[in-house]
Amino acid sequence: MKIGGKHYRSVWVESDGRTVFYIDQTLLPFEFKVRQLANVGAAAQAIRTMQVRGAPLIGAVAAFGVALAMANDASDATLEHARDLLLATRPTAINLAWALDRMGNALLNQPRTERVAAAYREAQAICDEDVTTCQAIGRHGLQLIRAAAGSKRPVNILTHCNAGWIACVDWGTALAPIYMAHDAGIPVHVWVDETRPRNQGARLTAWELGAHGVPHTVIVDSAGGHLMQRGLVDLCIVGTDRTTAGGDVCNKIGTYLKALAAHDNNVPFYVALPHTSIDWTLESGASIPIEERAANEVTSITGRDAAGKIVSVAVTPDGSAAANFAFDVTPARLIGALITERGVTPASAEGLLSLYPEQAPEPTKERGK
Amino acid sequence: MKIGGKHYRSVWVESDGRTVFYIDQTLLPFEFKVRQLANVGAAAQAIRTMQVRGAPLIGAVAAFGVALAMANDASDATLEHARDLLLATRPTAINLAWALDRMGNALLNQPRTERVAAAYREAQAICDEDVTTCQAIGRHGLQLIRAAAGSKRPVNILTHCNAGWIACVDWGTALAPIYMAHDAGIPVHVWVDETRPRNQGARLTAWELGAHGVPHTVIVDSAGGHLMQRGLVDLCIVGTDRTTAGGDVCNKIGTYLKALAAHDNNVPFYVALPHTSIDWTLESGASIPIEERAANEVTSITGRDAAGKIVSVAVTPDGSAAANFAFDVTPARLIGALITERGVTPASAEGLLSLYPEQAPEPTKERGK
Repeated sequence: MKIGGKHYRSVWVESDGRTVFYIDQTLLPFEFKVRQLANVGAAAQAIRTMQVRGAPLIGAVAAFGVALAMANDASDATLEHARDLLLATRPTAINLAWALDRMGNALLNQPRTERVAAAYREAQAICDEDVTTCQAIGRHGLQLIRAAAGSKRPVNILTHCNAGWIACVDWGTALAPIYMAHDAGIPVHVWVDETRPRNQGARLTAWELGAHGVPHTVIVDSAGGHLMQRGLVDLCIVGTDRTTAGGDVCNKIGTYLKALAAHDNNVPFYVALPHTSIDWTLESGASIPIEERAANEVTSITGRDAAGKIVSVAVTPDGSAAANFAFDVTPARLIGALITERGVTPASAEGLLSLYPEQAPEPTKERGK
Repeated sequence: MKIGGKHYRSVWVESDGRTVFYIDQTLLPFEFKVRQLANVGAAAQAIRTMQVRGAPLIGAVAAFGVALAMANDASDATLEHARDLLLATRPTAINLAWALDRMGNALLNQPRTERVAAAYREAQAICDEDVTTCQAIGRHGLQLIRAAAGSKRPVNILTHCNAGWIACVDWGTALAPIYMAHDAGIPVHVWVDETRPRNQGARLTAWELGAHGVPHTVIVDSAGGHLMQRGLVDLCIVGTDRTTAGGDVCNKIGTYLKALAAHDNNVPFYVALPHTSIDWTLESGASIPIEERAANEVTSITGRDAAGKIVSVAVTPDGSAAANFAFDVTPARLIGALITERGVTPASAEGLLSLYPEQAPEPTKERGK
């Protein structure tokens, strides 16, 4: 998407084919800073500190992390170490494991002399496919927004956290249909959950939408239920860090509460996801590991002070403990539909298998890993 | 309750019988500042700027505001002006109108020479009765906590916003049962919703509980659903700004989402309230006016910086709009029980009338105002 008229991806390789850059998301919306991804350690650190975040983007940056490791030393040991290092950065998003598996498969049987080129090629392919995938999600989701339009007012869409282009390589998952609706001239207005504790809604989704000219209003995470009770939300679209084979959706903490409110008020609740976010090995969301992050993400908040400096302020009394669960699981029963690159389908094992029949267990053969 | 070993109320009259003091809640937990309530204009300003907040406390401070107005000029015109000024400060809490009605009834038929003394007497009575009422709520709620205790771990209680002693005159509504359980040696642990946008949970509830030594953990408002799914919440207790005759509960924005999650996970959801928070003229919560506050409560956050200074930081991009609905309505069907000073009762017209039979419509007489 464009920033100040110039097209950007959230991670990209320079024309030399080797130098990798990314947008530091911890400084947005106050500062737009492009950083170089120097090596695999820097990639792990960028993921861990959430300079890059969003399930698809984490996978893409991890892939480049492996490529950078190969550029340094194309040995099996380095490959294994890079994958272990990157896999340990964050536990919940399944795309990370998916991308690292794919990089491993692409490299392990390659001669060392070809590994560097192969690694960059594969990482770039992961990025390009993510863009294509997100565009397809956008086109399918656009039909749902189009169906909700037609009244005198804009289509009011609530989203939680950031599942926009900055969470992916381009376009986004939850936001792709919104960008496409806006570009197609369908009037849309987005209620942006601020999404404590890290405020990815207030900081990133609002910034993205504003940069693209999409009307939006930031609200506290507690407000969505009231808006739905008053008829001010036509539909919800969120992303996901991991969706199970049974259709349970793990996403940023608080998604479950919005799904409950949508269900209670007959507001359609959609989850947009690429196939890379599906964990075919899990039936129920209850088994997904939920990341617990540092308490100081709750006890302090980062913003811009009157002098324009980015500072953190404490918001709790000294001595009060805080807990910081980063994700929750929304049961499939609360989800109206899943929007994938292959189409819109019910959040159920049957629904997912109807789009991904190749994932059906084969009774006569051993099931693949 | 005690702060550093000294007993405080949230508003009080000095031994001269005329000088009124209150705790400035906008500075907590970072600074404990007692301010004098100089006149009725200052009372209105203190309520409007939320130096004092919490439905019962708003009523008490408004009563003292009337007394201060009378001390200045005991005329009918001044009385009327004081009531209009104070009533216009905040729209949602019904206690404000209740306290102002009561002050009017106590003063209008008094000779002017006795109005000042009568006004202070009545305001003091409102305060003293609120303390007695909260103590009774605490005793009734204590039984619910006691019934939930007995396992090997503490009783885990989730609360939203601040309905503690600082929201009342002393003891609190939702927190009174918790203080009494703690004092009775029942192990309790409180999950404190930070309660954006003004963070009354993170700032006031955490401070209160900490000062009294009650174990607690601050969480973002989005976390409660996940905690309930994982069995980490035994019961919820919240306060209310207005409860209808039909048992619908208007309370700080986000209460509805927690009630939905409690219902979805079979966690008892209790609302603690004094009779002064009941609006007998409304059946449904849909007719309660919902205060919309300034957008900058959402777009910026106040906290303490590294140098110890209280500062506000912006958390949204320039140019992004924000909406700030301060309350929502939880339908009676989601509420396990109401805890009032007269006992525990279902959230329904029948339940409330069983405790307050004097409010039943009298078919042969005209219903009183």
